[in-house]
Amino acid sequence: MKTEPVSLELAERDESTGRVEAFSDGIFGVAITLLALEIGVEEYQGATDASLLAHIAELWPKYLAYINSFATVLLMWLAHHQMFKFIKKPNSSLILTNGLLLLIVALVPFPTKTVGQFIDTEARNVAVEFYTGYFLLVNFAFLLVWRIAAAKSKGLLHAFATHEVVATVSKSYQIGVLINLICFGLSFVNPWLGIGANVISWIYWAVSFKE
Amino acid sequence: MKTEPVSLELAERDESTGRVEAFSDGIFGVAITLLALEIGVEEYQGATDASLLAHIAELWPKYLAYINSFATVLLMWLAHHQMFKFIKKPNSSLILTNGLLLLIVALVPFPTKTVGQFIDTEARNVAVEFYTGYFLLVNFAFLLVWRIAAAKSKGLLHAFATHEVVATVSKSYQIGVLINLICFGLSFVNPWLGIGANVISWIYWAVSFKE
Amino acid sequence: MKTEPVSLELAERDESTGRVEAFSDGIFGVAITLLALEIGVEEYQGATDASLLAHIAELWPKYLAYINSFATVLLMWLAHHQMFKFIKKPNSSLILTNGLLLLIVALVPFPTKTVGQFIDTEARNVAVEFYTGYFLLVNFAFLLVWRIAAAKSKGLLHAFATHEVVATVSKSYQIGVLINLICFGLSFVNPWLGIGANVISWIYWAVSFKE
Amino acid sequence: MKTEPVSLELAERDESTGRVEAFSDGIFGVAITLLALEIGVEEYQGATDASLLAHIAELWPKYLAYINSFATVLLMWLAHHQMFKFIKKPNSSLILTNGLLLLIVALVPFPTKTVGQFIDTEARNVAVEFYTGYFLLVNFAFLLVWRIAAAKSKGLLHAFATHEVVATVSKSYQIGVLINLICFGLSFVNPWLGIGANVISWIYWAVSFKE
Repeated sequence: MKTEPVSLELAERDESTGRVEAFSDGIFGVAITLLALEIGVEEYQGATDASLLAHIAELWPKYLAYINSFATVLLMWLAHHQMFKFIKKPNSSLILTNGLLLLIVALVPFPTKTVGQFIDTEARNVAVEFYTGYFLLVNFAFLLVWRIAAAKSKGLLHAFATHEVVATVSKSYQIGVLINLICFGLSFVNPWLGIGANVISWIYWAVSFKE
Repeated sequence: MKTEPVSLELAERDESTGRVEAFSDGIFGVAITLLALEIGVEEYQGATDASLLAHIAELWPKYLAYINSFATVLLMWLAHHQMFKFIKKPNSSLILTNGLLLLIVALVPFPTKTVGQFIDTEARNVAVEFYTGYFLLVNFAFLLVWRIAAAKSKGLLHAFATHEVVATVSKSYQIGVLINLICFGLSFVNPWLGIGANVISWIYWAVSFKE
Repeated sequence: MKTEPVSLELAERDESTGRVEAFSDGIFGVAITLLALEIGVEEYQGATDASLLAHIAELWPKYLAYINSFATVLLMWLAHHQMFKFIKKPNSSLILTNGLLLLIVALVPFPTKTVGQFIDTEARNVAVEFYTGYFLLVNFAFLLVWRIAAAKSKGLLHAFATHEVVATVSKSYQIGVLINLICFGLSFVNPWLGIGANVISWIYWAVSFKE
Repeated sequence: MKTEPVSLELAERDESTGRVEAFSDGIFGVAITLLALEIGVEEYQGATDASLLAHIAELWPKYLAYINSFATVLLMWLAHHQMFKFIKKPNSSLILTNGLLLLIVALVPFPTKTVGQFIDTEARNVAVEFYTGYFLLVNFAFLLVWRIAAAKSKGLLHAFATHEVVATVSKSYQIGVLINLICFGLSFVNPWLGIGANVISWIYWAVSFKE
């Protein structure tokens, strides 16, 4: 029968990770691009060159928040791809946990604009604690996806993901959570320290990134 | 002739469901990510840590609406993929009915922000009725797409979609509509009951989800 | 040499229409989903069930504009895919003209919100003329892409796109422009007539759509 | 073993440029479509046909900014694809530098709305200098990506990217930076001269574009 091979091929393709990756990519990509929507100078009467320049300059907290969130989500996106290279086929739990991660990632614009709007006000402590706390949550969700994927009894990983490989990857994700926990803790000491630690952490991840 | 095989291959690919799925995915993915745009604290004079924390906390209806809509649309997206695994090739009616579903799904941000804005006001009854009613509409459209796909005379399904399989799938989608009808009905009794039923329904779907 | 076949394969893939179609799809899909952002009820003090219901009801011009634009762009997207099935490989002119079409399509949210905001005011004549005039422009750009693609001397079409096929397709696109010209003209007679003709035109296209 | 070929195939695919290109395309495509969100006429009391027409007409600086940014980013997107045809496989540095380019491209809506809002005010000098300066930055980032890709010692390019080819491509990107530097310089002489040079530059690129 002519339809058989086609349907089998489809079924096989659907068991691979392509579909889950594609919809994850879509959400990561749109969420990261929407971050830019927050940045702009409102129209106002009597604009002059000097006042516009001042307005552009005083948006620096939003630039900082934008760069920090964009870089962090981009690096997480790269890590997400690397994680899925180890996965042979997703099961229901993995798809749903990944969905939870996407739900959290899609909301990154919210803490980002909060820190951009309030870091330059008396509310900076709460703004930065919320921001670093949110990225701690993102990292928890990321580690959770890996936990589900690497569960030994389920056999979701490729054969080349040996016990040693899994242990190394797990450790690197745990370090990610730990670093975010430190950033979160430092935010309570001083908001600039919290943000600074956050910036240093993604610079560190970028430098140590291996394709 | 050299162009023949290429064109045939193209024609074949175009008869498969890939294209319809890809543009459906795009709209599901962007619509779901745009839900996050509604959430934020407006800039205000004299911000303090305490007041910002209060503002973040009082946004809880928007978080509830966001999580509920994101989870529901994500599960529908997964169901949409599963449905299309059964479809061998779409015909015009299927493509257009699917387009109607997308038109409705793309507007989910509207009832979502309505419920997020008004559930904490005296307008909560109408807000929740509108919200649960909208998801009833989404589920109707979803069932309609399946009805068109499974129409016996058209032969749009793969051979492995036997009479029993089709009956099982149809029943599960009808149950989906029924559950949404109950949520809609409960909204008229009490808005919190309506929203609560909605939350329970997607948790149930998530738990019973089979890849 | 090992790299040769890879590069050849890449070169071949790049000469096909896949890439142009993928970025066109992205823009069509995002533009269509952004239409929904315009629709919402502003938060206001003293909301009651009755007032919220009234506010939701009085948004009807925006629903009309949304449905009309979504349906029109979706049908154009389907037509765009069908057009590209005939194209063997794009040349520079085709890619750039298609880029012009995308520039125009991406701005569809502007006339859509204009008609949604002003059709219920004394400015309805200009709002509808602008709206129908804009879709006339979209259809012109669409016809222009086909003209470039079908230029006999360039050989961009597949062999199965015979003289008769090209003539039939050209005629159907010219009819599209003509119908939009009529809608535009009727807008000057009466705005409701212009919008009504627009609605009828996409219903007609949907009914006559052949996959 | 059955899983081996699958995993090898996956690994191979992942070493190619497909993934980097796909996420670049996503960000280019969403960023370009979001440009349209800035354009619209606010709702106002007592709208008449004449006043709406006047409002639509007086948005001309926004149309100019939209067309200019859309065209520039679209041409850069095409150039990005052509660049990646030469790349055999990306390394970490290339992926990260490309990420920096995306971070900058995703923020193009910001200078675009700035110039659209202020070119018609006394702040036009700063607005245009900011705008042309931003595109100079975009072009620098683009050149940087190519520098990383073409670094001789790394062997990231296909064999068909000979020394001559690389030299030609490098020169064309350097000319791009130079042209943007001239536009930036001219903005300080006169804002209209700066914008005019910008428009001329993308028309020139479009005309000289070779698929």
